[in-house]
Amino acid sequence: MENQATQARPLFNKVVLIGVGLIGGSFALSLKKAQAVAHIVGLDRHLTSLEAAKQLGIIDSFTDDIASAVIDADMIVIATPVAQTTKILSAIYPHLQGHTIVSDVGSTKADVVLVARNSLQEKISQFVPAHPIAGREKNGPEAAIDDLYIDKKVVITRLEENTDRAVELVAQAWSTCGAIIHHLSPEEHDQVFASVSHLPHLLAYALVDDIAAKVHADRLFQYAASGFRDFTRIAGSSPEMWRDISLANRDAILEELDSYSVKLNQLRASLVASDSAALEAIYSRAQTARINWISAIEAAEAQNKDGGD
Amino acid sequence: MENQATQARPLFNKVVLIGVGLIGGSFALSLKKAQAVAHIVGLDRHLTSLEAAKQLGIIDSFTDDIASAVIDADMIVIATPVAQTTKILSAIYPHLQGHTIVSDVGSTKADVVLVARNSLQEKISQFVPAHPIAGREKNGPEAAIDDLYIDKKVVITRLEENTDRAVELVAQAWSTCGAIIHHLSPEEHDQVFASVSHLPHLLAYALVDDIAAKVHADRLFQYAASGFRDFTRIAGSSPEMWRDISLANRDAILEELDSYSVKLNQLRASLVASDSAALEAIYSRAQTARINWISAIEAAEAQNKDGGD
Repeated sequence: MENQATQARPLFNKVVLIGVGLIGGSFALSLKKAQAVAHIVGLDRHLTSLEAAKQLGIIDSFTDDIASAVIDADMIVIATPVAQTTKILSAIYPHLQGHTIVSDVGSTKADVVLVARNSLQEKISQFVPAHPIAGREKNGPEAAIDDLYIDKKVVITRLEENTDRAVELVAQAWSTCGAIIHHLSPEEHDQVFASVSHLPHLLAYALVDDIAAKVHADRLFQYAASGFRDFTRIAGSSPEMWRDISLANRDAILEELDSYSVKLNQLRASLVASDSAALEAIYSRAQTARINWISAIEAAEAQNKDGGD
Repeated sequence: MENQATQARPLFNKVVLIGVGLIGGSFALSLKKAQAVAHIVGLDRHLTSLEAAKQLGIIDSFTDDIASAVIDADMIVIATPVAQTTKILSAIYPHLQGHTIVSDVGSTKADVVLVARNSLQEKISQFVPAHPIAGREKNGPEAAIDDLYIDKKVVITRLEENTDRAVELVAQAWSTCGAIIHHLSPEEHDQVFASVSHLPHLLAYALVDDIAAKVHADRLFQYAASGFRDFTRIAGSSPEMWRDISLANRDAILEELDSYSVKLNQLRASLVASDSAALEAIYSRAQTARINWISAIEAAEAQNKDGGD
């Protein structure tokens, strides 16, 4: 396999992966499966994660010396909780060579761009922000899989300073993992994900915490069934990661939360008034919208299977 | 197969199924699979549903004459949206013979009990309220399957007037379908399900309707991923059914909604204050509670597989 990779000339000679958990680890495994990288160096706060990642074939070597790791890297991917990005970019900056592309996988983008401009200064053109829309209920290197990104979206929020080459390389890396590339501005990105991802996480966390605090919590959980299981799946996500996302995209999330609260108050008022028609109207609109959405997803999936990218 | 059923003497000679959709249809198919019933007569508002149900082997015959259907029935199961229960029980009442057991499958119980006392008068001892905790995203007879209730809970909310024989027959019918029998009072039942089922449905409907009403709804739905898909699965449920449930269990749902709103306001305040520790505390408690709950479910499932109930 190494011979083949050498013969085929991989996309990258050296990739530096900072954060070897589910998202970064799955990116690494996908690149390796496609023989698109000769060597991956791992860095992580947790030594046990690095050891596990090496054991699992996610990385080829690891180090705690960011300066040496960065030298000669083709691509550096930051796959840590968002709050660590500033520190990491500042550590990278002095050693960053002109041909190296830096990217991230953060679930928020405007804050990362702000931080990156401060940390990378005149080298900001080398930073191409990205967000793969994929996940699992589990975290850590043990949860990483080599097909996590197949047919999943990756949103690139290109900066005006980025060169076409830089953007193209990041897009190529993710396409190699099987992902479908989309482009949004950082602000568009954050508004979209506040609505369809960040707010739902808050709502699910709030519900489970509310129930867990009740006197009869055990009995309540005993009768919770598959609807509850699916509704609260995202409340099993990493608290640290979602704390960071919440703070990083605070304003957009608050806007979505307030819009949602207005809707919830309407629903409450209809319930108080026993307004049968108003309740059914809300439920019917929601059901129709969801059915249309699912149909569109299934049609897109069928198209991808037929030929797509 | 018919010979075998005759030889084994089925649990019921004649079952009357009122409402031949997912829940009632799956009950019928499960009884038939277990050869526990000789003949099932179907009634439904929709003639097309009755024709489909007969085609699918859910019922053996159908009628629109409740008086003739009820005669000689061993068991009558009402599996319609909750709001129709009054009308149906009143129609049953004059023809109900002493040996016939009546049950329902409604997601709310206190209201059904109230209605049943009014409609069945001195025959109330024959009505054993029940609620199978199972469902699918799809509705109608076409969605009915013969293994929907295997290892699922069925809550019986016994009335003080019920005889042991009546309760035992209903329990036996559901056990035959593979279900696990639980007992709660109607009030306990309604409080539990307001919390872990009815409120989550309201929250999911509200979110999808909120997003669908936005100017950029199409773009938002385009980036909604698997977390959103699971969170909103229950918003695909029947609007009519959930309108009825919402109204039938209004007071308990309002109580849960108000408790939830307090929690959501706490979360909002933490977000406004960028209170990192408070956010992480809520998320961590929720994650822990959910992980414990899932572990308990999986342990129970493993136990059922090992030796059943």
